[in-house]
Amino acid sequence: MQQPQARKPAVADTLQSNFSLDPLFRPRSVAIVGASERSPWTRSVKRNMGVTQFQGRVHMVNRRGESVFGQAATASCAAIGELVDVALLLIPASSLTAALDDLAAANIRNAVILSSGFAETGPQGLRLQMEVEAKARAHGITILGPNCLGFANFAAHSAVWAGTLQARSVVGNVAVVSQSGAVANTTNHFAHQQGVGLSCVISTGNEINFGIAAAIDYLVDDAATKVICVFMESVRDPAAFTTAAANAFARGKPLVVLKVGRSEITAKAAKAHTGALVGDDRVFDAICRQFGIVRVRSIEELVVTADVMAKVGPLRGSGVGLVSISGGLCEIAADLADAESVDLPAFNDETVAALRELLPAFATAQNPLDLTAVSTEQPILMQRVIETIAKDRSISLLCHLFEVPESQEDTSHFSLAALEHIGKGVAAAPGPVIVLASTMRAVSVSGREIIEKNSLPYVSGGLELGMPAISRALRWLELQRRRSTSPRGAVSGAATRGGPLPRSEFEAQQYLVQFGVPVVPTAFVRTAAEAAEAATTMGARIVIKIASKDIAHKSDVGGVMLDLHPEDVRAAFDGMLATVKSRCPDATIDGALVSPMRRGGVELLVGVKQDPQWGPVLAVGLGGIFVELLKDTSLRLLPVSQADVGEMLAELRGARLLAGHRNVAAVDVGKLAEVIARIGQAAFALGPSLETLEVNPLLAMGTRIEALDALVVGR
Amino acid sequence: MQQPQARKPAVADTLQSNFSLDPLFRPRSVAIVGASERSPWTRSVKRNMGVTQFQGRVHMVNRRGESVFGQAATASCAAIGELVDVALLLIPASSLTAALDDLAAANIRNAVILSSGFAETGPQGLRLQMEVEAKARAHGITILGPNCLGFANFAAHSAVWAGTLQARSVVGNVAVVSQSGAVANTTNHFAHQQGVGLSCVISTGNEINFGIAAAIDYLVDDAATKVICVFMESVRDPAAFTTAAANAFARGKPLVVLKVGRSEITAKAAKAHTGALVGDDRVFDAICRQFGIVRVRSIEELVVTADVMAKVGPLRGSGVGLVSISGGLCEIAADLADAESVDLPAFNDETVAALRELLPAFATAQNPLDLTAVSTEQPILMQRVIETIAKDRSISLLCHLFEVPESQEDTSHFSLAALEHIGKGVAAAPGPVIVLASTMRAVSVSGREIIEKNSLPYVSGGLELGMPAISRALRWLELQRRRSTSPRGAVSGAATRGGPLPRSEFEAQQYLVQFGVPVVPTAFVRTAAEAAEAATTMGARIVIKIASKDIAHKSDVGGVMLDLHPEDVRAAFDGMLATVKSRCPDATIDGALVSPMRRGGVELLVGVKQDPQWGPVLAVGLGGIFVELLKDTSLRLLPVSQADVGEMLAELRGARLLAGHRNVAAVDVGKLAEVIARIGQAAFALGPSLETLEVNPLLAMGTRIEALDALVVGR
Repeated sequence: MQQPQARKPAVADTLQSNFSLDPLFRPRSVAIVGASERSPWTRSVKRNMGVTQFQGRVHMVNRRGESVFGQAATASCAAIGELVDVALLLIPASSLTAALDDLAAANIRNAVILSSGFAETGPQGLRLQMEVEAKARAHGITILGPNCLGFANFAAHSAVWAGTLQARSVVGNVAVVSQSGAVANTTNHFAHQQGVGLSCVISTGNEINFGIAAAIDYLVDDAATKVICVFMESVRDPAAFTTAAANAFARGKPLVVLKVGRSEITAKAAKAHTGALVGDDRVFDAICRQFGIVRVRSIEELVVTADVMAKVGPLRGSGVGLVSISGGLCEIAADLADAESVDLPAFNDETVAALRELLPAFATAQNPLDLTAVSTEQPILMQRVIETIAKDRSISLLCHLFEVPESQEDTSHFSLAALEHIGKGVAAAPGPVIVLASTMRAVSVSGREIIEKNSLPYVSGGLELGMPAISRALRWLELQRRRSTSPRGAVSGAATRGGPLPRSEFEAQQYLVQFGVPVVPTAFVRTAAEAAEAATTMGARIVIKIASKDIAHKSDVGGVMLDLHPEDVRAAFDGMLATVKSRCPDATIDGALVSPMRRGGVELLVGVKQDPQWGPVLAVGLGGIFVELLKDTSLRLLPVSQADVGEMLAELRGARLLAGHRNVAAVDVGKLAEVIARIGQAAFALGPSLETLEVNPLLAMGTRIEALDALVVGR
Repeated sequence: MQQPQARKPAVADTLQSNFSLDPLFRPRSVAIVGASERSPWTRSVKRNMGVTQFQGRVHMVNRRGESVFGQAATASCAAIGELVDVALLLIPASSLTAALDDLAAANIRNAVILSSGFAETGPQGLRLQMEVEAKARAHGITILGPNCLGFANFAAHSAVWAGTLQARSVVGNVAVVSQSGAVANTTNHFAHQQGVGLSCVISTGNEINFGIAAAIDYLVDDAATKVICVFMESVRDPAAFTTAAANAFARGKPLVVLKVGRSEITAKAAKAHTGALVGDDRVFDAICRQFGIVRVRSIEELVVTADVMAKVGPLRGSGVGLVSISGGLCEIAADLADAESVDLPAFNDETVAALRELLPAFATAQNPLDLTAVSTEQPILMQRVIETIAKDRSISLLCHLFEVPESQEDTSHFSLAALEHIGKGVAAAPGPVIVLASTMRAVSVSGREIIEKNSLPYVSGGLELGMPAISRALRWLELQRRRSTSPRGAVSGAATRGGPLPRSEFEAQQYLVQFGVPVVPTAFVRTAAEAAEAATTMGARIVIKIASKDIAHKSDVGGVMLDLHPEDVRAAFDGMLATVKSRCPDATIDGALVSPMRRGGVELLVGVKQDPQWGPVLAVGLGGIFVELLKDTSLRLLPVSQADVGEMLAELRGARLLAGHRNVAAVDVGKLAEVIARIGQAAFALGPSLETLEVNPLLAMGTRIEALDALVVGR
């Protein structure tokens, strides 16, 4: 790790509270420091201010006080003599600290720094960045950047943006925040192409004192933003991020995240790119599930998902109705719905009867609904059908497949009439409707006019991207409904228990019992006689295990004997001790544990491990081949509630095993989740000195849940 | 099933051989029968002939001989008095048979019928369709349609097409064949938007005597076509389809298929749409693997996959190099590559050294390669980097992320210079390169000019769709290399053996032995004494199973006893018979089978089942939870070779179990595949009277492969 200092979590992700960020993102006046007609940055920032119709004051500042594009300049910010909300610093990295002094003198609290050449270039750049950070902290200046493109706030008509902006940008409700300037620019371009309106784009770059979490906090409060899109390489302040994510979810604003780092190769690439450590991707995936973050894998998915989520409000259920004028497109849509777990319920009888009235005899009144070619002669059918289906109680969202023409050439009388009728149908429909393009279509200026004229809830992303986006929206809305009606439940904020960690399997078992975790009856014995005595009361078959802090893998050294008759335990104890002593002559042997032998049921693995970035992470999996061959585990950050664990169990591919299987009884999943949550509680209470806690197996047989084993390892 | 007749496999999918289809798809003259200025079809077909620059003769025919758009018409085709290649019939369904007589009189061998109102509308339409079919057969007329949009042959500058065509269609190497007219039209539009050139679009509709298979055969021979795209609901002639697919693969033309019917809801929708039965989707999936068909799920995937495959020729390997000017985009690309199993190997030392020379010190010479912002100042870097990486032996395909500007607005001096240098790099590169847009981008007319000017192998589909498309192309090319170096191997074309099916488990086992399938030693015994005698030589533990044709589930009625000591077999035999007789008083009991008890190893399930559409299908799966809970089986049409079975085993999610696991030895997979292929051979030889043959379990322990059970059921 070349740049250890830059990556540690910042104490504070931002210096200002959310509302005081308005001067940064909705400035009334901007100073361009280092402004010059020869600078492409000055030109492009000026141009973009025009594109966003920025009405505030722009002050030019440069050393010589040379006028810029005919506008007089001052030699310093202090010399401006007016209140300035944001300073854009277009000056060499080496002059930055002096420039910040000037800002402080002018009482400017916000700066945008585009320049690269900081932490991302190596140790020297990192030193420079730390100097700037210290100076900003001393002056209380919030810095966007460095190594960023600035921001464009379309909704507020302001921009300090060095990327490209399209002359007639679509203003809308989707905000984009990105650690990468190029990705921010590409996302903006793609959204523009698709006619997806943005509220703002913020490029955070190296995040000296303003990062992703602060941007999310700001946008959750931003009335112009309905959906927040994030691109990130690394989470620099994990606690601030999860807090911001939880807040966004609680406030009902979807957070759609494209975070790279799924593959090892990406982790290497990210380190080369900005020195960022991407972290354990499976943990981040789990955090997304836990905090209701919608995770996507590409810019296309990011934009189309956000578009759908901005257009689909709260729904009463998850049933989707599909309508198209083509049978073939209905079928493609139905297959994609199936693949993406989007439910297309049957229409109810009333709807079917009403559709039969409307449609010709050879049409079939079913979901998905093929309007047949008749609709090309009677476009009013589309309006009637929307009105009819939207009344159906089993349909929570109606998706009408239709295209907005791109050019004069593909604009027909039919398509214009159809879109008008669809618009009327949408307006009259009691429930939510979206109009989805069959394939991804660019939205032209003339297309936008048609959309606006007919107030169409148009999603141009096409079926391939639109159907997964609908699925993500439905899942997120379900989670909103579920968590609002049955909240997560108590999560054990149990204070750290303090004191030493359990030092042996026996102590670990006793520790779990204190948290209400059922543990298999276990006797700690030191002699064969004690073992034999303990065994007599335990049942028909007995297990004995060696007890030694020095032996991690007991069965590898003959330290586990299964399925013993109670009368054989005495001899087995002696035999086991002899074997283990001969194989591990240096190990201190404390004695053995005696337990009844359990058979049948479903075995689970429950483990807690400290993640270097996120802290203690709970893993739950089904034992045997599920964990070993299929890597079928579910993760969550601690603390967790029983409801969280219920979601974890439902995620497992082998979840069906818990529902009973051949001669195995169905497991009481509620009780199982409760026991696992208690194990999590017990691990969480051990605090940061815990490295791992593992129960393997946790046996589940109907309503009997029992830890057969326990292991605690300190850091 | 409302329309049983229309769905049975046609005897012949087409009446003509491939080359004689040129008059249909490359006509020199077309007659429009029923032409009228008032008909929107006449207008749109005329317009589309203009768009494709059709240079042949167009004859107008209508009953009254009224001139059309100022062109004289005849009252019949026979009256034209010249050779006509294709007649477009724009006449009411009820007049069609008479019109076909007129065509025959004029010696016209090809007709396009757009009208709907046939089999897709119900029994009456079906009757009409069958009349037309009979008439066409009698006259030897090939019919495209009915219920279709015709065809547009861009490469041959001809069209009889009633859909919309863009004025400046891109001509290219991708052919599109579709059973749905709307899907054909939408696909053409999407390809146009993406700048993907098509050779032709063929809409087959109800496929009276010209179907998908015949279209594929024609296009395999079509020099203008490099990749064949297909949309279909149903396979009307399975044998013709697999033959055409095998031919396309052998000739090195990728066949990319979007077939609907994955979900039950789609199956219902398809039946409503055209009365088509979609068939068992898992079987179709298996056929795609078996015949090297690339299957996709949407129009976007269809077009982008075809685009990549048309631009990527044969490769020496599967290593991909990635280059971008943005670190963030590199990371998104690397994650997608990982998700889609696209290998991004490390550059070799020479490449790394050469890249270090070219790039600034803070850049990292790794794959994926972030050129850093330096490249915006020195676009020539892109050329040099392409030349350098393309020489690397571990890189078989280089993918350079870059966008072609869409509009004047996003055209910068930099982007034009960069694209010029990329073009030069591609031209100089010794290996294949594609230029991939970071996100899906529409290609404008000005964009096309830039692409052509710089001869860019540009894929506009973006990373989200482009990376899976690259993955599919790589897998298909791998399969081409593998099957050309080690062909499928002998597949048992064994003639049907004839004679009765094996009637009992014992006969089934003996039958398998004839095909070289190792079967566990088994004695058929009638008495307890025989059972005991057989058991003495068989080993330490014995299994006995009831032998009765009347009992299908032996263990349910106490008809299986496991793990017996040989000396206990006599008593067990008597006990088992008594139990079974009491539970199944009406069953005829022949005796019992005695075998040694096997333990350990990996259990597989091998089954053959007649598919109503495709014939005998072989299923292979791992026993236990893999089959029962995870439905983890692989399917193939019979006959299969050992190499086919090897591919099946590799597909299983639990395939790692075969590689050895804990105390289980690795299985000799070659031998296992051979035995399974022999089971397939045995089943195939039983001919159509077989309903199912099942070996469950087939035990695999190291090199010992042994059928422990066998069941044959006749139809």
